[in-house]
Amino acid sequence: MRVLGIDPGLRNMGWGVIDVSGARLTHVANGICHSEPGDLAERLLSLHRDLTEVLRRFAPDAAAVENTFVNKDAVATLKLGQARGIALLVPAQAGIRVGEYAPNAVKKTVVGVGHAAKAQIDHMVRIHLPGVQISGPDAADALAIAICHAHHVQSSGRLEAALARAAR
Amino acid sequence: MRVLGIDPGLRNMGWGVIDVSGARLTHVANGICHSEPGDLAERLLSLHRDLTEVLRRFAPDAAAVENTFVNKDAVATLKLGQARGIALLVPAQAGIRVGEYAPNAVKKTVVGVGHAAKAQIDHMVRIHLPGVQISGPDAADALAIAICHAHHVQSSGRLEAALARAAR
Repeated sequence: MRVLGIDPGLRNMGWGVIDVSGARLTHVANGICHSEPGDLAERLLSLHRDLTEVLRRFAPDAAAVENTFVNKDAVATLKLGQARGIALLVPAQAGIRVGEYAPNAVKKTVVGVGHAAKAQIDHMVRIHLPGVQISGPDAADALAIAICHAHHVQSSGRLEAALARAAR
Repeated sequence: MRVLGIDPGLRNMGWGVIDVSGARLTHVANGICHSEPGDLAERLLSLHRDLTEVLRRFAPDAAAVENTFVNKDAVATLKLGQARGIALLVPAQAGIRVGEYAPNAVKKTVVGVGHAAKAQIDHMVRIHLPGVQISGPDAADALAIAICHAHHVQSSGRLEAALARAAR
Protein backbone atom coordinates (compact mmCIF):
# COMPACT_ATOMS: atom_id res chain seq x y z
CA MET A 1 0.00 0.00 0.00
CA ARG A 2 1.26 3.47 -0.89
CA VAL A 3 0.45 6.30 1.53
CA LEU A 4 0.59 10.06 0.93
CA GLY A 5 0.95 12.30 3.99
CA ILE A 6 0.18 16.03 3.69
CA ASP A 7 1.15 18.81 6.11
CA PRO A 8 -1.16 21.65 5.03
CA GLY A 9 0.03 25.24 4.83
CA LEU A 10 -0.66 28.18 2.53
CA ARG A 11 2.99 29.10 1.97
CA ASN A 12 4.50 25.62 2.34
CA MET A 13 2.40 22.50 1.80
CA GLY A 14 4.60 19.52 2.76
CA TRP A 15 4.00 16.10 1.20
CA GLY A 16 5.58 12.68 1.64
CA VAL A 17 4.94 9.31 -0.01
CA ILE A 18 5.87 5.94 1.56
CA ASP A 19 5.28 2.31 0.61
CA VAL A 20 3.95 0.01 3.32
CA SER A 21 4.45 -3.76 3.10
CA GLY A 22 3.55 -5.53 6.36
CA ALA A 23 5.64 -3.78 9.03
CA ARG A 24 8.15 -2.56 6.44
CA LEU A 25 8.10 1.10 5.42
CA THR A 26 9.98 2.40 2.36
CA HIS A 27 10.44 6.03 1.39
CA VAL A 28 9.21 6.92 -2.12
CA ALA A 29 9.40 10.71 -2.37
CA ASN A 30 8.80 13.93 -0.46
CA GLY A 31 8.67 17.62 -1.23
CA ILE A 32 7.01 20.96 -0.63
CA CYS A 33 4.43 22.82 -2.73
CA HIS A 34 5.16 26.54 -2.36
CA SER A 35 2.88 29.50 -2.94
CA GLU A 36 4.31 33.00 -2.70
CA PRO A 37 2.29 35.81 -1.05
CA GLY A 38 -0.11 37.45 -3.51
CA ASP A 39 -3.66 36.90 -4.80
CA LEU A 40 -5.19 34.26 -2.50
CA ALA A 41 -7.27 32.49 -5.16
CA GLU A 42 -4.16 32.20 -7.38
CA ARG A 43 -2.18 30.74 -4.45
CA LEU A 44 -4.84 28.10 -3.81
CA LEU A 45 -4.97 27.33 -7.55
CA SER A 46 -1.18 26.85 -7.59
CA LEU A 47 -1.28 24.53 -4.55
CA HIS A 48 -4.15 22.57 -6.13
CA ARG A 49 -2.19 22.11 -9.39
CA ASP A 50 1.05 21.08 -7.65
CA LEU A 51 -0.64 18.65 -5.28
CA THR A 52 -2.72 17.15 -8.12
CA GLU A 53 0.58 16.55 -9.97
CA VAL A 54 2.00 14.74 -6.88
CA LEU A 55 -1.07 12.46 -6.85
CA ARG A 56 -0.72 11.83 -10.59
CA ARG A 57 3.00 10.99 -10.36
CA PHE A 58 2.94 8.72 -7.31
CA ALA A 59 -0.61 7.28 -7.42
CA PRO A 60 -1.03 6.66 -3.67
CA ASP A 61 -3.72 4.24 -2.36
CA ALA A 62 -4.43 6.27 0.76
CA ALA A 63 -3.83 9.77 2.09
CA ALA A 64 -3.65 11.42 5.50
CA VAL A 65 -3.72 15.07 6.55
CA GLU A 66 -2.85 16.62 9.90
CA ASN A 67 -5.97 17.76 11.74
CA THR A 68 -4.42 20.89 13.13
CA PHE A 69 -5.66 24.28 14.14
CA VAL A 70 -3.70 27.27 15.28
CA ASN A 71 -4.99 29.26 18.23
CA LYS A 72 -2.83 32.34 17.67
CA ASP A 73 -5.41 34.34 15.80
CA ALA A 74 -8.46 33.88 13.61
CA VAL A 75 -6.73 35.25 10.48
CA ALA A 76 -3.94 32.63 10.69
CA THR A 77 -6.47 29.87 11.37
CA LEU A 78 -8.61 30.92 8.38
CA LYS A 79 -5.50 30.92 6.12
CA LEU A 80 -4.53 27.46 7.28
CA GLY A 81 -8.12 26.28 6.80
CA GLN A 82 -8.10 27.45 3.17
CA ALA A 83 -4.89 25.51 2.45
CA ARG A 84 -6.26 22.51 4.35
CA GLY A 85 -9.39 22.57 2.17
CA ILE A 86 -7.14 22.03 -0.87
CA ALA A 87 -5.14 19.30 0.93
CA LEU A 88 -8.36 17.36 1.61
CA LEU A 89 -9.98 18.05 -1.78
CA VAL A 90 -7.16 16.82 -4.04
CA PRO A 91 -7.01 13.20 -2.75
CA ALA A 92 -10.84 13.07 -2.65
CA GLN A 93 -10.89 14.14 -6.32
CA ALA A 94 -8.58 11.16 -7.05
CA GLY A 95 -11.07 8.85 -5.28
CA ILE A 96 -8.74 8.25 -2.32
CA ARG A 97 -9.93 8.15 1.30
CA VAL A 98 -8.30 10.78 3.50
CA GLY A 99 -7.39 10.00 7.11
CA GLU A 100 -7.13 12.85 9.61
CA TYR A 101 -4.83 12.78 12.64
CA ALA A 102 -4.30 15.28 15.44
CA PRO A 103 -0.69 16.55 15.72
CA ASN A 104 -0.29 14.79 19.08
CA ALA A 105 -1.41 11.45 17.60
CA VAL A 106 1.18 11.82 14.83
CA LYS A 107 3.95 12.63 17.34
CA LYS A 108 2.92 9.81 19.66
CA THR A 109 3.06 7.26 16.83
CA VAL A 110 6.33 8.46 15.29
CA VAL A 111 8.30 9.70 18.31
CA GLY A 112 6.54 7.90 21.18
CA VAL A 113 5.39 11.01 23.03
CA GLY A 114 2.63 13.53 22.24
CA HIS A 115 4.76 16.64 22.76
CA ALA A 116 7.83 16.25 20.55
CA ALA A 117 10.00 19.00 19.07
CA LYS A 118 10.41 19.44 15.29
CA ALA A 119 14.00 18.08 15.51
CA GLN A 120 12.78 14.88 17.19
CA ILE A 121 10.21 14.29 14.45
CA ASP A 122 12.86 14.79 11.77
CA HIS A 123 15.19 12.39 13.62
CA MET A 124 12.56 9.66 14.02
CA VAL A 125 11.38 9.97 10.41
CA ARG A 126 15.02 9.27 9.37
CA ILE A 127 15.07 6.18 11.61
CA HIS A 128 11.74 4.91 10.21
CA LEU A 129 12.90 5.59 6.62
CA PRO A 130 16.68 4.92 6.48
CA GLY A 131 18.59 6.94 3.87
CA VAL A 132 15.74 9.40 3.25
CA GLN A 133 16.60 12.88 1.93
CA ILE A 134 14.09 15.32 3.42
CA SER A 135 13.11 18.52 1.54
CA GLY A 136 12.44 20.52 4.74
CA PRO A 137 10.52 20.56 8.04
CA ASP A 138 7.12 20.55 6.31
CA ALA A 139 8.09 17.50 4.25
CA ALA A 140 9.36 15.76 7.44
CA ASP A 141 5.97 16.44 9.07
CA ALA A 142 4.19 15.08 5.99
CA LEU A 143 6.27 11.86 6.10
CA ALA A 144 5.46 11.58 9.84
CA ILE A 145 1.74 11.83 9.00
CA ALA A 146 2.13 9.10 6.34
CA ILE A 147 3.96 6.85 8.89
CA CYS A 148 1.20 7.51 11.45
CA HIS A 149 -1.47 6.49 8.91
CA ALA A 150 0.48 3.33 7.98
CA HIS A 151 0.65 2.29 11.67
CA HIS A 152 -3.05 2.93 12.21
CA VAL A 153 -4.04 0.94 9.13
CA GLN A 154 -1.77 -1.94 10.28
CA SER A 155 -3.19 -1.87 13.83
CA SER A 156 -6.77 -1.92 12.63
CA GLY A 157 -5.84 -4.73 10.19
CA ARG A 158 -4.37 -6.81 13.06
CA LEU A 159 -7.44 -6.11 15.17
CA GLU A 160 -9.76 -7.22 12.38
CA ALA A 161 -7.67 -10.40 11.85
CA ALA A 162 -7.78 -11.16 15.61
CA LEU A 163 -11.54 -10.62 15.72
CA ALA A 164 -11.98 -12.86 12.67
CA ARG A 165 -9.89 -15.62 14.37
CA ALA A 166 -11.89 -15.21 17.60
CA ALA A 167 -15.16 -15.54 15.66
CA ARG A 168 -14.11 -18.83 14.01
CA MET B 1 -20.69 41.81 -17.18
CA ARG B 2 -21.91 38.78 -15.24
CA VAL B 3 -20.89 38.57 -11.57
CA LEU B 4 -20.97 35.53 -9.26
CA GLY B 5 -21.11 36.20 -5.52
CA ILE B 6 -20.27 33.40 -3.08
CA ASP B 7 -21.03 33.25 0.66
CA PRO B 8 -18.72 30.46 1.82
CA GLY B 9 -19.83 27.86 4.36
CA LEU B 10 -19.20 24.16 4.88
CA ARG B 11 -22.88 23.22 5.36
CA ASN B 12 -24.43 25.92 3.18
CA MET B 13 -22.44 27.63 0.43
CA GLY B 14 -24.66 30.41 -0.94
CA TRP B 15 -24.22 31.65 -4.51
CA GLY B 16 -25.84 34.36 -6.59
CA VAL B 17 -25.39 35.49 -10.20
CA ILE B 18 -26.31 38.97 -11.50
CA ASP B 19 -25.86 40.76 -14.80
CA VAL B 20 -24.43 44.29 -14.67
CA SER B 21 -25.04 46.74 -17.52
CA GLY B 22 -23.98 50.28 -16.62
CA ALA B 23 -25.85 51.06 -13.38
CA ARG B 24 -28.52 48.42 -14.14
CA LEU B 25 -28.42 45.15 -12.21
CA THR B 26 -30.44 42.09 -13.26
CA HIS B 27 -30.87 38.90 -11.30
CA VAL B 28 -29.84 35.73 -13.16
CA ALA B 29 -29.93 32.92 -10.58
CA ASN B 30 -29.16 32.06 -6.96
CA GLY B 31 -28.97 28.94 -4.84
CA ILE B 32 -27.21 27.04 -2.10
CA CYS B 33 -24.70 24.17 -2.36
CA HIS B 34 -25.33 21.89 0.64
CA SER B 35 -23.01 19.38 2.26
CA GLU B 36 -24.35 17.18 5.04
CA PRO B 37 -22.16 16.39 8.09
CA GLY B 38 -19.87 13.41 7.45
CA ASP B 39 -16.42 12.78 5.98
CA LEU B 40 -14.83 16.22 5.56
CA ALA B 41 -12.93 15.47 2.33
CA GLU B 42 -16.18 14.15 0.76
CA ARG B 43 -18.02 17.31 1.84
CA LEU B 44 -15.39 19.53 0.20
CA LEU B 45 -15.49 17.36 -2.93
CA SER B 46 -19.29 17.73 -3.10
CA LEU B 47 -19.08 21.55 -2.67
CA HIS B 48 -16.36 21.70 -5.34
CA ARG B 49 -18.50 19.69 -7.80
CA ASP B 50 -21.66 21.75 -7.18
CA LEU B 51 -19.91 25.10 -7.40
CA THR B 52 -18.03 24.04 -10.56
CA GLU B 53 -21.42 23.19 -12.07
CA VAL B 54 -22.71 26.70 -11.18
CA LEU B 55 -19.70 28.23 -12.99
CA ARG B 56 -20.27 25.96 -15.98
CA ARG B 57 -24.00 26.79 -16.22
CA PHE B 58 -23.82 30.57 -15.77
CA ALA B 59 -20.32 31.42 -17.10
CA PRO B 60 -19.69 34.55 -14.98
CA ASP B 61 -17.00 37.09 -15.98
CA ALA B 62 -16.05 37.93 -12.39
CA ALA B 63 -16.50 36.47 -8.93
CA ALA B 64 -16.45 37.80 -5.37
CA VAL B 65 -16.23 36.03 -2.01
CA GLU B 66 -16.87 37.40 1.46
CA ASN B 67 -13.61 37.87 3.37
CA THR B 68 -15.02 36.76 6.66
CA PHE B 69 -13.64 35.12 9.74
CA VAL B 70 -15.47 33.95 12.81
CA ASN B 71 -13.95 34.68 16.20
CA LYS B 72 -16.08 32.22 18.15
CA ASP B 73 -13.57 29.40 18.19
CA ALA B 74 -10.67 28.05 16.19
CA VAL B 75 -12.54 24.89 15.12
CA ALA B 76 -15.38 26.92 13.52
CA THR B 77 -12.87 29.25 11.84
CA LEU B 78 -10.89 26.31 10.43
CA LYS B 79 -14.11 24.75 9.06
CA LEU B 80 -15.10 28.01 7.40
CA GLY B 81 -11.56 28.37 6.02
CA GLN B 82 -11.77 24.97 4.36
CA ALA B 83 -15.06 25.85 2.65
CA ARG B 84 -13.66 29.25 1.70
CA GLY B 85 -10.65 27.56 0.08
CA ILE B 86 -13.09 25.79 -2.28
CA ALA B 87 -15.05 29.03 -2.91
CA LEU B 88 -11.84 30.78 -4.02
CA LEU B 89 -10.41 27.81 -5.95
CA VAL B 90 -13.37 27.11 -8.24
CA PRO B 91 -13.53 30.55 -9.98
CA ALA B 92 -9.70 30.60 -10.19
CA GLN B 93 -9.84 27.22 -11.97
CA ALA B 94 -12.25 28.79 -14.47
CA GLY B 95 -9.71 31.60 -15.08
CA ILE B 96 -11.88 34.23 -13.34
CA ARG B 97 -10.49 36.87 -10.98
CA VAL B 98 -11.92 36.69 -7.47
CA GLY B 99 -12.65 39.86 -5.49
CA GLU B 100 -12.70 39.69 -1.70
CA TYR B 101 -14.83 41.97 0.47
CA ALA B 102 -15.13 42.29 4.25
CA PRO B 103 -18.69 41.70 5.54
CA ASN B 104 -18.94 45.38 6.62
CA ALA B 105 -17.98 46.56 3.12
CA VAL B 106 -20.73 44.37 1.62
CA LYS B 107 -23.32 45.68 4.11
CA LYS B 108 -22.22 49.28 3.62
CA THR B 109 -22.59 49.00 -0.18
CA VAL B 110 -25.91 47.15 -0.19
CA VAL B 111 -27.68 48.51 2.91
CA GLY B 112 -25.79 51.79 3.48
CA VAL B 113 -24.46 50.94 6.94
CA GLY B 114 -21.70 48.56 8.05
CA HIS B 115 -23.72 46.83 10.75
CA ALA B 116 -26.92 45.57 9.16
CA ALA B 117 -29.12 42.67 10.25
CA LYS B 118 -29.75 39.66 7.97
CA ALA B 119 -33.34 40.85 7.35
CA GLN B 120 -32.10 44.25 6.13
CA ILE B 121 -29.70 42.62 3.67
CA ASP B 122 -32.48 40.40 2.33
CA HIS B 123 -34.77 43.45 2.00
CA MET B 124 -32.19 45.57 0.17
CA VAL B 125 -31.22 42.71 -2.17
CA ARG B 126 -34.92 42.52 -3.17
CA ILE B 127 -34.92 46.29 -3.85
CA HIS B 128 -31.70 46.08 -5.94
CA LEU B 129 -33.04 43.06 -7.86
CA PRO B 130 -36.83 43.49 -8.23
CA GLY B 131 -38.84 40.26 -8.44
CA VAL B 132 -35.97 38.05 -7.28
CA GLN B 133 -36.82 34.70 -5.65
CA ILE B 134 -34.18 34.03 -2.99
CA SER B 135 -33.23 30.44 -2.03
CA GLY B 136 -32.34 31.35 1.58
CA PRO B 137 -30.25 33.68 3.78
CA ASP B 138 -26.92 32.34 2.39
CA ALA B 139 -28.10 32.98 -1.18
CA ALA B 140 -29.23 36.52 -0.16
CA ASP B 141 -25.74 37.16 1.25
CA ALA B 142 -24.17 35.83 -1.96
CA LEU B 143 -26.32 38.18 -4.07
CA ALA B 144 -25.30 41.06 -1.75
CA ILE B 145 -21.62 40.18 -2.36
CA ALA B 146 -22.23 40.16 -6.14
CA ILE B 147 -23.98 43.58 -5.91
CA CYS B 148 -21.06 44.92 -3.83
CA HIS B 149 -18.56 43.73 -6.46
CA ALA B 150 -20.63 45.28 -9.27
CA HIS B 151 -20.63 48.66 -7.47
CA HIS B 152 -16.87 48.52 -6.85
CA VAL B 153 -16.11 47.63 -10.46
CA GLN B 154 -18.37 50.51 -11.61
CA SER B 155 -16.74 53.00 -9.20
CA SER B 156 -13.23 52.03 -10.24
CA GLY B 157 -14.36 52.21 -13.91
CA ARG B 158 -15.70 55.77 -13.34
CA LEU B 159 -12.48 56.71 -11.54
CA GLU B 160 -10.35 55.40 -14.40
CA ALA B 161 -12.51 57.27 -16.94
CA ALA B 162 -12.21 60.52 -14.91
CA LEU B 163 -8.43 60.09 -14.64
CA ALA B 164 -8.22 59.44 -18.39
CA ARG B 165 -10.28 62.62 -19.08
CA ALA B 166 -8.08 64.64 -16.68
CA ALA B 167 -4.94 63.34 -18.44
CA ARG B 168 -6.19 64.42 -21.90
